[in-house]
Amino acid sequence: MEFWFSEFHLPGLKYSLKVKECLYSGKSEYQRLDVFETEEFGRAFTLDGILMVTEKDEFVYHEMMAHLSSNIHPNPKRALVIGGGDGGTIRELARYDSFEEIHLCEIDKHVTDVCLEYFPNVAGILKSDERVKLYFEDGIKFLENKKNYYDIICIDSTDPIGPAVGLFKEDFYKLCYESLTEDGIVIAQSESPWYHLPIIKDVQDSFRKIFPISKLATASLLAYQSGFWSFSIGSKRYNPIEDFNLEKAEKIEKFTKYYNSGIHKASFVLPNYVKKIFR
Amino acid sequence: MEFWFSEFHLPGLKYSLKVKECLYSGKSEYQRLDVFETEEFGRAFTLDGILMVTEKDEFVYHEMMAHLSSNIHPNPKRALVIGGGDGGTIRELARYDSFEEIHLCEIDKHVTDVCLEYFPNVAGILKSDERVKLYFEDGIKFLENKKNYYDIICIDSTDPIGPAVGLFKEDFYKLCYESLTEDGIVIAQSESPWYHLPIIKDVQDSFRKIFPISKLATASLLAYQSGFWSFSIGSKRYNPIEDFNLEKAEKIEKFTKYYNSGIHKASFVLPNYVKKIFR
Repeated sequence: MEFWFSEFHLPGLKYSLKVKECLYSGKSEYQRLDVFETEEFGRAFTLDGILMVTEKDEFVYHEMMAHLSSNIHPNPKRALVIGGGDGGTIRELARYDSFEEIHLCEIDKHVTDVCLEYFPNVAGILKSDERVKLYFEDGIKFLENKKNYYDIICIDSTDPIGPAVGLFKEDFYKLCYESLTEDGIVIAQSESPWYHLPIIKDVQDSFRKIFPISKLATASLLAYQSGFWSFSIGSKRYNPIEDFNLEKAEKIEKFTKYYNSGIHKASFVLPNYVKKIFR
Repeated sequence: MEFWFSEFHLPGLKYSLKVKECLYSGKSEYQRLDVFETEEFGRAFTLDGILMVTEKDEFVYHEMMAHLSSNIHPNPKRALVIGGGDGGTIRELARYDSFEEIHLCEIDKHVTDVCLEYFPNVAGILKSDERVKLYFEDGIKFLENKKNYYDIICIDSTDPIGPAVGLFKEDFYKLCYESLTEDGIVIAQSESPWYHLPIIKDVQDSFRKIFPISKLATASLLAYQSGFWSFSIGSKRYNPIEDFNLEKAEKIEKFTKYYNSGIHKASFVLPNYVKKIFR
C-alpha cells in the first residue's frame, strides 16, 4: 500500500508527498487539521489540505518573518504575531533579548494545541518563554484595542482564503499601522511571486498608501507553492535596507539555517518579472 | 478524461502537471523525448521523463547561465555551450555583440531538432544567428581538440544520470580549463541546494582545485526539482562578484525577465544551510 498527500498548487499542478503515517486528523470551528509523517520532509502540518509547516524547511519562512523585521528596529520591545499559531515565527523573535512582550494572536487554538504536541521544536517556545502570551482571538478585533503598542507586527497568515481573507485587506493594514508605535514595522507573508503577483501587487499598493516606507523581499523555500515566497514590509521610520544592522545580524546568524547578513540585503533584490509590478 | 505528467523529484515527492495534449513523443539513441502542452506552464519538454524546458520559466535558467558568466568577462569572443541542445542559453549569449563564435556541442541531435520545431522562441536562435555553429558530438571528446580557445564555456547538462554523468567529473572540468583562454570562465548547472548538496559540494571542490577563482550562485525557478537551483562558476582571472560590469548588465536587463544588475550580485549570497558545505 502507498499513502500520498496531494496539494493542488494550481488547478493543473499537483504536489504529492509520500506519507509514512497520518499522526493526527481533526476539525476545528475554522478548518481541517492534519499531521503527517512524510518520507521526504519529516513531519508536515496541513490546514484544509494546504502545507503549513514541514520539519525540513520551516526555518526559512519563520526566520525571514522574524529577522527581516526585527533586525532593522534598533530596540524592539513588543512584538505581535497574527496567525502563526505553530509558533515558528515566535521562536525566531524570541532570539532577541530586547523583546519584553511577544504576543501571539491566533484565531484557532486547535492549531497551537496540535503544533505543541507534534512540533515541539517549532511550537515549544510558546510554553517555555515567559515573555510569550497567547491570545486565541480574531486578529482584526484584537488590534482594535491595541493602539500605539507594538514595535513589530508579523502577519503570519494562511493563504487569502477562509479565515485569513481579512488579513489581506487594506483596512486591516491600517489597523496594523495604528497598533504600531511611532517607529514600528509590519511584515506580512504575501504569497508566491510565480503564482500570485496580483496579490503581491495589492499588498504592496496598500502598504505604499499607508506606510512611509514599504519593501518587498523574497526567499526560496520548499513546501509553499512554487518554492519561492514573498514578504511585504511596511515601516514608519526604518528602511529595511539602509537601516540593516550588521551587528545584530551577525549575532543571529549563529543560530539560523537560512537567514544571514548577506541574505538580509539580497532578499530585497527582485527579478525583473517581479519588479514590473512597481512600474 | 484527465491526462497528467508526473515527475518524481524524490522517491517520496511527485510533481504532476496537467497536460492538454502530448505534441511529440520519440526516442533517440540516448533518451526518450516528449513535448507536452500543459495547463499551467505552457509547452514543456522532457528528457527521460524529467522536465528540461517549460515556456513559463525557462528564462530564469538560461539567463543565469549566460549572463552570470558573460557579464564578468570584459570582451568575450568565443563561447561554447555543452549540452543545452534546446538553444536557450545560446539565445541569451547571442545578446552580446562581442561574441564572434558561439558553439553548441550537444550529444543528441534529436533534442535540437525537437526544440527547433516545438520551441521556436527558445531554439530559433540556433538557425537565425550566423555566429552559431552546431556540433552534435560528445562534449568530452569535442573539448580534447579545442585547447586555449573559448572565453566562456557553459555546461548546460541534464542531471548527473545517463548521458550527462561524465559532465560532473573533475577530469571533465580539467578539460574545460584547458579549452578556455587565459582569462576564460566556465559555468555549470549544479543541481538543487535543497536536494543535491553533496553534488554541489563535489562540483565546488573540483572547481576550487582547478580554477584560481570559484563561486556558487543560485536562482529561483519553477520546473526543476525544489524550484531552487545552483550554478557553479570557475574562472581563471575575473571574479564573478568584484568584476561585475554594471554597464553591461544595464544593457542586458532591458531584455531579460529574471536577470538584472541587482540579481547578479545577490545570486552569490547563500543561505546558511548552503554555506555550510564550504566549512
